Amino acid sequence: MGKDYSKFIRNKDFLGKVVSAEEAASWIEDGMNLGMSGFTLFGEPKEFPLALSKRGENENFKVNVYTGASLGPTADQSMAEADIVNLRVPYQANPVMRGKINSGEMYYIDQHLSHVAEEVRKGSLGNIDYAIIEAAAITEDGTIIPTGSVGNSPIFVEKAENVIIELNTKAPTAYEGIHDIFVLEEQGERGEIPIYSVGDRIGEPGIKVDLDKVRGIVISEQPDIPSPLFEPNKETQQIADNLLDFLGKEVDEGRLTKSLAPLQSGVGSVANAVLNGMKDSQFRDLEVHSEVLQDGIFDLIDAGVVKFASGTAFSLSEKRVATLAEDLEKYKGKVLFRPQEISNHPEVIRRLGIISFNTALEVDIYGNINSTHVSGTRVMNGIGGSGDFARNARITIFVTASLAKNGDISTIVPFVSHVDHTEHDVDVIVTEQGFADLRGLAPVQRAEKLIEIAHPTYRSQLRAYLEEAKEKVGGHTPHMLDKAFSFHTSLKENGTMLFEEEKVKN
Amino acid sequence: MGKDYSKFIRNKDFLGKVVSAEEAASWIEDGMNLGMSGFTLFGEPKEFPLALSKRGENENFKVNVYTGASLGPTADQSMAEADIVNLRVPYQANPVMRGKINSGEMYYIDQHLSHVAEEVRKGSLGNIDYAIIEAAAITEDGTIIPTGSVGNSPIFVEKAENVIIELNTKAPTAYEGIHDIFVLEEQGERGEIPIYSVGDRIGEPGIKVDLDKVRGIVISEQPDIPSPLFEPNKETQQIADNLLDFLGKEVDEGRLTKSLAPLQSGVGSVANAVLNGMKDSQFRDLEVHSEVLQDGIFDLIDAGVVKFASGTAFSLSEKRVATLAEDLEKYKGKVLFRPQEISNHPEVIRRLGIISFNTALEVDIYGNINSTHVSGTRVMNGIGGSGDFARNARITIFVTASLAKNGDISTIVPFVSHVDHTEHDVDVIVTEQGFADLRGLAPVQRAEKLIEIAHPTYRSQLRAYLEEAKEKVGGHTPHMLDKAFSFHTSLKENGTMLFEEEKVKN
Repeated sequence: MGKDYSKFIRNKDFLGKVVSAEEAASWIEDGMNLGMSGFTLFGEPKEFPLALSKRGENENFKVNVYTGASLGPTADQSMAEADIVNLRVPYQANPVMRGKINSGEMYYIDQHLSHVAEEVRKGSLGNIDYAIIEAAAITEDGTIIPTGSVGNSPIFVEKAENVIIELNTKAPTAYEGIHDIFVLEEQGERGEIPIYSVGDRIGEPGIKVDLDKVRGIVISEQPDIPSPLFEPNKETQQIADNLLDFLGKEVDEGRLTKSLAPLQSGVGSVANAVLNGMKDSQFRDLEVHSEVLQDGIFDLIDAGVVKFASGTAFSLSEKRVATLAEDLEKYKGKVLFRPQEISNHPEVIRRLGIISFNTALEVDIYGNINSTHVSGTRVMNGIGGSGDFARNARITIFVTASLAKNGDISTIVPFVSHVDHTEHDVDVIVTEQGFADLRGLAPVQRAEKLIEIAHPTYRSQLRAYLEEAKEKVGGHTPHMLDKAFSFHTSLKENGTMLFEEEKVKN
Repeated sequence: MGKDYSKFIRNKDFLGKVVSAEEAASWIEDGMNLGMSGFTLFGEPKEFPLALSKRGENENFKVNVYTGASLGPTADQSMAEADIVNLRVPYQANPVMRGKINSGEMYYIDQHLSHVAEEVRKGSLGNIDYAIIEAAAITEDGTIIPTGSVGNSPIFVEKAENVIIELNTKAPTAYEGIHDIFVLEEQGERGEIPIYSVGDRIGEPGIKVDLDKVRGIVISEQPDIPSPLFEPNKETQQIADNLLDFLGKEVDEGRLTKSLAPLQSGVGSVANAVLNGMKDSQFRDLEVHSEVLQDGIFDLIDAGVVKFASGTAFSLSEKRVATLAEDLEKYKGKVLFRPQEISNHPEVIRRLGIISFNTALEVDIYGNINSTHVSGTRVMNGIGGSGDFARNARITIFVTASLAKNGDISTIVPFVSHVDHTEHDVDVIVTEQGFADLRGLAPVQRAEKLIEIAHPTYRSQLRAYLEEAKEKVGGHTPHMLDKAFSFHTSLKENGTMLFEEEKVKN
């Protein structure tokens, strides 16, 4: 490779390590564990997984792929298409890979995002044979500067036997300086995580790497990968408005001030609509302590509503990717990325008192949440960091439209078909019908509130279940186990959760 | 009250506050929120709740009762019998109270034990009208010295409008000095919890109280309340042996040393059997960081196996209660009690890297755990601190006998009828049949391991469910929702989970 990369590879000892993606891919052996950078399509290696997938078209081998979170078309999708993945941990969101998981062609462990680094440290996912990390630069002192995410890269680099750096020469140089890399020692030998407010910098600007472990540097010119921008529709806007109403009530009743508390929001259209709604709200001087920073964050900083935002990764639309290089310069000092172990750590979330809102796939009348499995069986994406935040937040909010599939699905059901968040962890549910504040309520009281925010079409059916369960079975959490999944079996048999007798009424 | 209590009430400003239990009980009004000390029958007020219950026999009023955890016959039971409780939070274990909860006569919120103080601080359980706290002494500087538990007493005292102290003149004086009271500031305004090893003392020996808030001091001579001692039987001994085998394997494979990591164990016979088994094991220089300290801890300290033990409460048998006064002197410096918010705090549990083992009521083939609800409906006790530890532990272990009700119940089922701990939080399941190490396994792989430790009688029935679900439905987590609760409906209809066709085989 004759080109001069000394602008990006500023330590000359690393300069001789440049290899082709094909050569790097040739080092990988059947059964190896690969730790890759990447989170919500940002900061993932692209040339390496493409080359590895290409090799997989002609050779039989499988690898275990651990990442930060979801990777994109050149990584998760190409590797799934090439059938080279045995096990994927901890989160994915690619349709091709999802199909392979649900058809039983590959294994998947859906893990709390704050837990992965701990599992790697303890060795319960085996050794990391190769860490493959996208970088914007390698500094004079041999530090890897990540790109648009940090994810689990620090622990992968620390524990890997070999490191492959995918140096992206098209990555904005202004990525340098927005990371804050803090590394935890072993359990039992560590101190506190000294974050006491959202903007606290506690670590290094990049990931320290041992020169001897770096086997190769692959050059990439592939740009950051945009995600679709979910513009709010009438329904998501209504959900967002209801959530803002709830927060307003908390301010009115003196439990929060107008600067609320640091916010975490899941990815998607409701989150974007909520952030958008903040602009015209009474709320001011907000801070965001989240996992993923979306387009809306920049708008809120521009509008003077958000003072500071931290996360572990970007997820940006095409428009924002186009202007990212300038934006990074502009927002430096107001945006910061941490390892996902730190952004999602219970210690930090609980100390700061985060307000958390995430999307539910399904909610049951007692407040249990399904975030991951369609009909309890087919996984969509994964739990991601929702559990890290839900369990430890000051206020834990889940949002969902009350209907799905043109009304054939009620997202509020008697018994969720998969439990990701238990009744013990959920404070408030918001639909387009309103919000249900479950705090301080026993199960049967929660059920009353939740039926009120179900879609009107399904309310009498839900009420009938509750009343029959109370009467025939009773107990602290009344359930008729023979009918607990009657909504789901109706959907399977008749194509709708709506019972015959209810159709007549509606 | 003419007696001289200056030996116990060492600040003379408090001496004039002594009143009868009846008088203190007369201050309570309908709808009030009471925060009571007490945890696993230790450290609870006894004369006050008895007097309040007696008042309730002739008067119509109801109160909300918040505690540390379970109270005994003079408190939870007498108040339940008198029907004076509207809402109980966060844990109970009294048969009379349980009956009232399950018959819908009173409300109950089953809450993570580390969350209660945070909820009180945030105001989501309303104001605390009265804190009623058992004390061994009131010091010169007006500090309350708790008795055999700390629980939530510090936050109740801090937030209560009025405080009633139940001074127990029969409490061992040596209770003074074993507590370590550390109080957290509001979320967003607090620092770290500076515990870096099990024995670290970070707080005060008692609970600071504002003299003006203390409305009365009730005198009690009621002794500490013992719990039954669960001697191991053949089955629980086998479970304990299997758990010790698992820990031995971790040592052999280099993931743990012979001093393991700080241990948390649930209450009951398996926990006692495990602790007992530690005496004859290879493990040495152990530390215990638990919620409840049982009889076995003292034996292990005597045997030189355990160096230090911390918790938030005792739960002791009659024999150990009898010698407690001497034992407290003997073990001072080796035993310490913290507020349950601190003992169970995710920050501390994760930093120290606790090994946690708790009892499951029911486990499903994918590793979800029911800790609380019989047939998904009738609550037994509550989740207690099991979620605080399970989510954040270094290794999360659940134990259960594979059979219950003389074999009519398999504790391993296709789908648990209530989820307290999700598949994301569970590492290892132990039955008398063996242990299933679920770490690093995808759902269908976990199911294989779990069926192996089900009772042989039920294995083919469980395997048939799994195979049919994989074939007919497939997906990441194969389930047939119309048959997911077939074990439970069989139990209800036929008195046994064993299907007819399986009975023939057995």
